[in-house]
Amino acid sequence: MVNCLLASTSTIFGSTYLDYLFDSLEQLFQNTDEVVFIPYARPGGISHDEYTKIAKKGFKNINKSIVGLNTFENPIEAIKKAKGIFTGGGNSFVLVNGLYQNGVIPILKDKINSGTPYLGTSAGSNIAGPTIKTTNDMPIVYPPSFDSLGIIPFNINPHYLDPDPNSTHKGETRETRIKEFHEFNNTPVIGLREGSWIRVQNEETTLQGSQLNARIFEKGKDAYEIPEGTSLKFLR
Amino acid sequence: MVNCLLASTSTIFGSTYLDYLFDSLEQLFQNTDEVVFIPYARPGGISHDEYTKIAKKGFKNINKSIVGLNTFENPIEAIKKAKGIFTGGGNSFVLVNGLYQNGVIPILKDKINSGTPYLGTSAGSNIAGPTIKTTNDMPIVYPPSFDSLGIIPFNINPHYLDPDPNSTHKGETRETRIKEFHEFNNTPVIGLREGSWIRVQNEETTLQGSQLNARIFEKGKDAYEIPEGTSLKFLR
Repeated sequence: MVNCLLASTSTIFGSTYLDYLFDSLEQLFQNTDEVVFIPYARPGGISHDEYTKIAKKGFKNINKSIVGLNTFENPIEAIKKAKGIFTGGGNSFVLVNGLYQNGVIPILKDKINSGTPYLGTSAGSNIAGPTIKTTNDMPIVYPPSFDSLGIIPFNINPHYLDPDPNSTHKGETRETRIKEFHEFNNTPVIGLREGSWIRVQNEETTLQGSQLNARIFEKGKDAYEIPEGTSLKFLR
Repeated sequence: MVNCLLASTSTIFGSTYLDYLFDSLEQLFQNTDEVVFIPYARPGGISHDEYTKIAKKGFKNINKSIVGLNTFENPIEAIKKAKGIFTGGGNSFVLVNGLYQNGVIPILKDKINSGTPYLGTSAGSNIAGPTIKTTNDMPIVYPPSFDSLGIIPFNINPHYLDPDPNSTHKGETRETRIKEFHEFNNTPVIGLREGSWIRVQNEETTLQGSQLNARIFEKGKDAYEIPEGTSLKFLR
């Protein structure tokens, strides 16, 4: 009975924060006026309060209020009582570290698994997979573990980027990095392009958004594309 | 009395493995015919033996033999006896994990600090800084620590990439990521473009290679450029 929306990015090019998701978010959060915001990922190093302000402004467009998890004395209780939860993007290492430090991983997992509507963008989507081992972020803090929520049985690579055929750069492409991941791990990976999201609802898991394909990486197989609308139940 | 060469990349565009470094490597390794190769970073997930073959082929051009650290029963003893050491690029997390698993960090540090010629490329350069927290790599394994050798007092960001002004991608630029690093860490960072290297010799630390600038990031300052030939002694 998971009910979540896991987006590759909060913002698509030429648009404003969350704009392309408003219709979907109205539907996701239809039964609550207030959403608890987890600001731990601190994009660009901004403070929890600054980040919460950005989320507030975004959610005003769909007439929902946002309350920052950092403003509660007891974050575990706050999540326990939440009727909707949103984890924003930023740095996945900082995010996971914050979740561990505040001891909220088990309760967050329970709440999402028992049907509390959940929105993740970028790093906030990343943590819905079993680990953050397919993040693009820099490891600027050392978290106690790379294990994350495991709401879905596969890992997400958000902001997925195709190799640039004209590049003269010798650093690894995203595809190479994910292939290296599979030398050490078995978990399937979805390369989620900006504008795509994963919708988990009514026992279904579907690729949605912007008529975009996603790229699937399974250990021992060549990577392949799937179109918008594809069920992801096979991916485990 | 450190004597090392820390390169952004093993290979520059349109060239072959190590080719642009041959002159410098002949000078670096002038007093030894054999170099111990640390293949732990496993680029593209290739095996230690496969990786050692690549290094062997490269070093044949300067008439030096390469012996893989993985072929020794006791890697600590092997490093202790080495007259030259080369750590190749690949995945920094896999590399550091391998160094910890084999218990070679303290001896490797001692050897380089006591003057054994050392070459690092990419991930192999990354580990010369205090931590691997400014790597570009995917965290595909969880190492016991992000602490690395600390041969130099600043961190390296290898394969440094300037932001693309025409990009429509919303993922973080390299500069944004390094700025986020400085929200949580004080260590200065050098963004080392492909074709550049750092030469530590005779108590001097200098930016060298390809007439390229490097980009310096210090906490609380705007990032700035330095030209080839600049002494890096100020960076600590």
